[in-house]
Amino acid sequence: MNDLPEYCLDLAKRAKRASAELSGVTGQQKQQWLRRAGRLLTERSAALVEANDLDVTAAPSFGLSDAAVDRLRLNPSRIAGMAKALDEVAALPEPVGEIISSSIRPNGLEVQKVRVPLGVIFFIYESRPNVTADAAALCVKAGNAVILRGGKEAVHSNAAIAAILAEAAAQTGLPPDAVQLVTTTDRAAVDHLLHMPEYINLCIPRGGEGLIRRVSAEARMPVIKHYAGNCHVYLDRSADADMAERLVINAKCQRMGVCNAAESLIVHRDVAQALLPRIGKALGERGIEIRGDQRTRQLLPQAKPASDEDYATEYLGPIISCKVVDSLDEAIEHINHYGSQHTEAIVTGDLQAARQFTSRVDSSAVMVNASTRFNDGGEFGLGAEIGISTDKFHARGPCGLNELTSYKYVVYGTGQVRE
Amino acid sequence: MNDLPEYCLDLAKRAKRASAELSGVTGQQKQQWLRRAGRLLTERSAALVEANDLDVTAAPSFGLSDAAVDRLRLNPSRIAGMAKALDEVAALPEPVGEIISSSIRPNGLEVQKVRVPLGVIFFIYESRPNVTADAAALCVKAGNAVILRGGKEAVHSNAAIAAILAEAAAQTGLPPDAVQLVTTTDRAAVDHLLHMPEYINLCIPRGGEGLIRRVSAEARMPVIKHYAGNCHVYLDRSADADMAERLVINAKCQRMGVCNAAESLIVHRDVAQALLPRIGKALGERGIEIRGDQRTRQLLPQAKPASDEDYATEYLGPIISCKVVDSLDEAIEHINHYGSQHTEAIVTGDLQAARQFTSRVDSSAVMVNASTRFNDGGEFGLGAEIGISTDKFHARGPCGLNELTSYKYVVYGTGQVRE
Repeated sequence: MNDLPEYCLDLAKRAKRASAELSGVTGQQKQQWLRRAGRLLTERSAALVEANDLDVTAAPSFGLSDAAVDRLRLNPSRIAGMAKALDEVAALPEPVGEIISSSIRPNGLEVQKVRVPLGVIFFIYESRPNVTADAAALCVKAGNAVILRGGKEAVHSNAAIAAILAEAAAQTGLPPDAVQLVTTTDRAAVDHLLHMPEYINLCIPRGGEGLIRRVSAEARMPVIKHYAGNCHVYLDRSADADMAERLVINAKCQRMGVCNAAESLIVHRDVAQALLPRIGKALGERGIEIRGDQRTRQLLPQAKPASDEDYATEYLGPIISCKVVDSLDEAIEHINHYGSQHTEAIVTGDLQAARQFTSRVDSSAVMVNASTRFNDGGEFGLGAEIGISTDKFHARGPCGLNELTSYKYVVYGTGQVRE
Repeated sequence: MNDLPEYCLDLAKRAKRASAELSGVTGQQKQQWLRRAGRLLTERSAALVEANDLDVTAAPSFGLSDAAVDRLRLNPSRIAGMAKALDEVAALPEPVGEIISSSIRPNGLEVQKVRVPLGVIFFIYESRPNVTADAAALCVKAGNAVILRGGKEAVHSNAAIAAILAEAAAQTGLPPDAVQLVTTTDRAAVDHLLHMPEYINLCIPRGGEGLIRRVSAEARMPVIKHYAGNCHVYLDRSADADMAERLVINAKCQRMGVCNAAESLIVHRDVAQALLPRIGKALGERGIEIRGDQRTRQLLPQAKPASDEDYATEYLGPIISCKVVDSLDEAIEHINHYGSQHTEAIVTGDLQAARQFTSRVDSSAVMVNASTRFNDGGEFGLGAEIGISTDKFHARGPCGLNELTSYKYVVYGTGQVRE
């Protein structure tokens, strides 16, 4: 594209205009849009699969693994899943206009804190094509215009899905630019857009840590970041043995490639002898390699030595690091040092230990006697999520509709002036 | 300073350690610290005035105006005011640990959203020495360690105040590094600290727009920004004449040098003839120059012509821009185009106009029949404020204690695993 800067500027300006127009769109219209888009996706299954075939055919030229090609592939059942997800977002409560709090001041002023959209969201993703529909649905339901930038491997699929979202928008009275797709695969387009804070209010990159670091370094607007999920399970000295085994196995093994899976097991020395052999056996039966400190290896001869780097690693696969500690304090310090502030769990029967752990561990979610796998928008009751933030600013943990909004103060008076 | 990078790194590391230690400090201890510091400030009035004299004596060499020197000066009554402000912060409700919301999920998990400190705050200011105490009080009351960087004109005063805050901290069991002052006036120190997102969670610059733009461009961590306050009062066609005059005069004249003072008056054409002459007269009597469009000048011969730049200007002084519009829509468009998203007011008796204005004007506070001057933490019932954010991210409008916090999810289970 020769005129890339103008193309990006035009995209951004259209989005800003659409975001202003969205303030006149009702919640009902947004629901109609989502349901209409869902129906169109289903009706156009054949055309979507055809567009997707172009991506699947080209996939080997991008060096995609078989597993990645499988994730890329659309079929009627996956398309029905996308449509169902849109219906679910439609059914979530309307976030815009919610009065978050209100008070009447002594001088009679009524001060309301009202939920409002952020404005324009730039969403960058590397994932499966269904993310195109999911992300657009959440951003626009929260009243924002969205600029989508998908991976080059899914360019035909994403274009087909975005076209359907736009068509449904036109049919239901939403501004057609509420959802726009960056149509060039030129990477420079991302940098141009990241330098437009006057048009774009928030950027959400979803993908590997490299993408997120690159985007954060370039962006001139706020970025909701999801770095690593190096999640810990700590077995306190009062841990129930059965519960400890069940939670460790669930946290590590139920789904290994996700951010809220456990990567590290910390065990109080008083229960190491009782717990580590049985948990080590259970992990071994599931093909998990254990990398431990010296005390771990004394109890688990099959364990390999753990390096400092192991304790800092998000494996996303069949390896777990393990450490025996002398105290709850040491466990907390280890977790705060090596963790990624994502999700940690304690297994304990001791009230004081639970309170110490929850108050001093500095992570987006801290679980007491529950699996790390529960850190998730759906599980927390937020509805669908656009990601899990490891930031402490604006949004932390699962980001649903509310995390895609801001607020304003609306003040009603009867002519009050300030003395 | 030869070893500036090490000095800054040490400062940042100490702050991070102090922030972790603050998680073990009770709300009561923080109250004791604030009250003790207040008492010490009063008891040491003479020494503070002496330190302040060094700054006042040096002030002409920094080119400070007489008014600026007056703002810099400490005397026993101003010191008593500082102490009183600390007592007031002590009396505010404890923010840390508040359960913002909670729910019990169908599987029995109890999910709590709990208020927690942000961590380390870097506060940069150019203002009067009392800001040293105010900012430290708010940051630490919200559970954060703070690094303070004041202006070079107040270096002796700020050091004396910070020393008292540290002394009181030591006496009440707070980590002494909870409040640290950057002791070098080397500007490079600010840049070093702005590049340490691994230690500093948030930067708040308070001062002129130049400072804020410089800090925002350099910072690698989130910045709460307060840009201009180009605030508007819009007189709708159903505006009550007396109320309109009262609100315009209050918004413009009650205190002209502050961010929530009005800078621009927008008048519906249907009431321009009835309202503009009397309001123009009232403004003139208070020495306010009016710069208006052609229709304004037809009604107010004394008005000067307004340029495009006038409509975008925050005068902070005795000038107001003025425009006659054909409709509410035109008023909203003008405000969203020229405004700074700070504070706008509508004077109207029309419910629909009020709702249109509040929902479509994209500012941190939108007033209906009340003065723009009410956009203030104290007036909104937030208690003391550390500033007013013109961002839409994390915190918007007045920033009190809650806006200096984040949250975490604390989840209590009884051994639940994810299916």
